[in-house]
Amino acid sequence: MPVARVVVDVMLKPEILDPQGQAVQRALPRLGFDGISDVRQGKRFELELDGPADEAALARIREAAETFLANTVIEDFTVRIEEEAK
Amino acid sequence: MPVARVVVDVMLKPEILDPQGQAVQRALPRLGFDGISDVRQGKRFELELDGPADEAALARIREAAETFLANTVIEDFTVRIEEEAK
Repeated sequence: MPVARVVVDVMLKPEILDPQGQAVQRALPRLGFDGISDVRQGKRFELELDGPADEAALARIREAAETFLANTVIEDFTVRIEEEAK
Repeated sequence: MPVARVVVDVMLKPEILDPQGQAVQRALPRLGFDGISDVRQGKRFELELDGPADEAALARIREAAETFLANTVIEDFTVRIEEEAK
């Protein structure tokens, strides 16, 4: 049976303050890493499906992301197929 | 001046227990989402560079990821260019 991995990336919306990302950004020059003007930190979910990543499966995952993985008041998410078979 | 966005994905190594991912995986069927056999949760960093994402910049970012963004004892990371210009 084909299996698939679907990745859901969840990031704070651009207008929402990101203190985790800011902490990383401020630490980088102190550690000798220059030339990075902004850092945003978010979450990445890797979902292994039992079956194929068809349109129905992706629609369900989008619904799960919207209701459960992301807080859509302050976060945006993207859903994409990473690989069709392991 | 060209700017670029580089994405660093940090995930727990496959052999490391992922309690956050397991919590999500167990919650999904209760919320009506079936057909997902495994969930892993990790971090995604979006870095905006002041300059181009050339090989020198990527080498510095890989070093930052290895020493600072990821704990390479338990985590793997990937670095990739997401977009060349905003």
